[in-house]
Amino acid sequence: MKNVTAFAPATVANVSCGFDILGFAVEEMGDKVTVSLSDTPGVRVVRIEGDGGRLPYETDKNTCSVALKAFAEHIGFEGGLEIELFKGLPLGSGMGSSAASSVAALEAANVLLGNPLEKKDLLPFAMKAEGVACGAEHADNVAPSLLGGFVLIRSYHPLDVTKLHVPKGLYCTLVHPHFELNTADSRSVLRQQVSLKDAIIQSGNIAGLVAGLFQEDMGLISRSLQDVIAEPSRSVLIPGFDEVKNAVKDIGALGVGISGSGPTTFILSPAQDVAYAAKEACLKVFEKIGLDVDIYVSAVNTKGTYVINKS
Amino acid sequence: MKNVTAFAPATVANVSCGFDILGFAVEEMGDKVTVSLSDTPGVRVVRIEGDGGRLPYETDKNTCSVALKAFAEHIGFEGGLEIELFKGLPLGSGMGSSAASSVAALEAANVLLGNPLEKKDLLPFAMKAEGVACGAEHADNVAPSLLGGFVLIRSYHPLDVTKLHVPKGLYCTLVHPHFELNTADSRSVLRQQVSLKDAIIQSGNIAGLVAGLFQEDMGLISRSLQDVIAEPSRSVLIPGFDEVKNAVKDIGALGVGISGSGPTTFILSPAQDVAYAAKEACLKVFEKIGLDVDIYVSAVNTKGTYVINKS
Repeated sequence: MKNVTAFAPATVANVSCGFDILGFAVEEMGDKVTVSLSDTPGVRVVRIEGDGGRLPYETDKNTCSVALKAFAEHIGFEGGLEIELFKGLPLGSGMGSSAASSVAALEAANVLLGNPLEKKDLLPFAMKAEGVACGAEHADNVAPSLLGGFVLIRSYHPLDVTKLHVPKGLYCTLVHPHFELNTADSRSVLRQQVSLKDAIIQSGNIAGLVAGLFQEDMGLISRSLQDVIAEPSRSVLIPGFDEVKNAVKDIGALGVGISGSGPTTFILSPAQDVAYAAKEACLKVFEKIGLDVDIYVSAVNTKGTYVINKS
Repeated sequence: MKNVTAFAPATVANVSCGFDILGFAVEEMGDKVTVSLSDTPGVRVVRIEGDGGRLPYETDKNTCSVALKAFAEHIGFEGGLEIELFKGLPLGSGMGSSAASSVAALEAANVLLGNPLEKKDLLPFAMKAEGVACGAEHADNVAPSLLGGFVLIRSYHPLDVTKLHVPKGLYCTLVHPHFELNTADSRSVLRQQVSLKDAIIQSGNIAGLVAGLFQEDMGLISRSLQDVIAEPSRSVLIPGFDEVKNAVKDIGALGVGISGSGPTTFILSPAQDVAYAAKEACLKVFEKIGLDVDIYVSAVNTKGTYVINKS
């Protein structure tokens, strides 16, 4: 085996009431990375496609090479690795684009080198890459992209990550307006103090969402998908957010939230047809607003990253 | 059938990171109430035992009669009901004493009158009684006393109550120091603003606790049993709290918290022998402090209130 190609899915972080602690992976969209053995020692990025020339080739800036350098050092691999990155996800969209790249690279390299680590143990290297891409070693995109499904990050110190149950039939509609949102702006609008009342409401909702996932109780999931902490301040930065919320209220969708720090909006639905109805409703919203938009419909991915080719 | 006697269990509310939203029921301790048909219309309290003469007989003050009056009005029952209350729980201890009384009365009356309502639909009448006993219509004691197990109160407006899974082997040690704590004091020490950071930590912990219960993951339950919102301010009012926490750290207990608003402390354990070891450790703590204490060990009750006699 001389090279391995892996796919890693797009992810939704900050899942509504799960602000900063919950993410999930989607099925259809994602990045592909091929990692090849090379006779020249060290990790190199040799090809990037689909990024419009915006991503760096420097090994200490590209998330794939940052992740692989940390991984290689950890397992004591001193040979050469070459990275080819095929972007399927738009950059800076709030769909976990940087996470998908580093996770696919890690999965490919781990399989290429004979699985020296278990999948879940690749997480710290992907988090390190997030630190380079986003300025903070967040796990809420990389963990679901790696492991699939809904993933709870209970704590960072120490790192405590748990995969939750995914009810059958859960679908997601991702609405990506062509609009760039500065992540720093999105962070800066958050209030640093919240009322005790809101903290309790948020606790009740995240507890209800987790219980609803395990019990496959779509009603409870829907009632729980309310974020009283981040969404009120952040949603004003996202064009069409309130309109999307209104538009899907009566078609049977479970809930709406900001994906990551936006500008993508996610809609959860209890079945595929509802997710497509949500897409139609959103197309009308953005036609009215006059903003270009990409809308994806996908099941929730439950297996995370996976190998698509070895040779 | 002329009379029915029901038992309703003690409960722990404010379960650590589940402050204000989560309660559970214990197996051994509780109140008993006999409700009898009477030819004289109206609801009356005719006997109270075990309260040291402290509970009122007035029908608009006693939690049993407040609950039954609301229940009778709701179902349109215009006959007579007589209440005999046998207190098994200490008053004002933080073990859901008032809740156990009203829940037992409701279960007995509902069965006596041929089950006009489902058990879960008795909740609003028990909450009304809590309003009289505590000044607020809390559900976090009455709901687990009625339904058993761990009960999440996601929201009050509208009321949204969900029973969670209870892992096999879960035991509780309740430590009740002979010390009266004014509930108003206990409320007044709570900060009305919390930092965004603490709100996120609390969310992560309650999500972890709920996931741990469903997955029967005792390690995750243990790591999640941390309350960063209420406990830091409230625990200083509770003699022995920090000492108990220290004493049970190394014997395999899952976690420690304030039961309701105290002064009772609860310890959750993954097995009966650990719960008894926690009892022994706590006895030593309070011997050293020089404060009398009652310590109870019990499984988590999963069935809630139940009838113990009909005649």
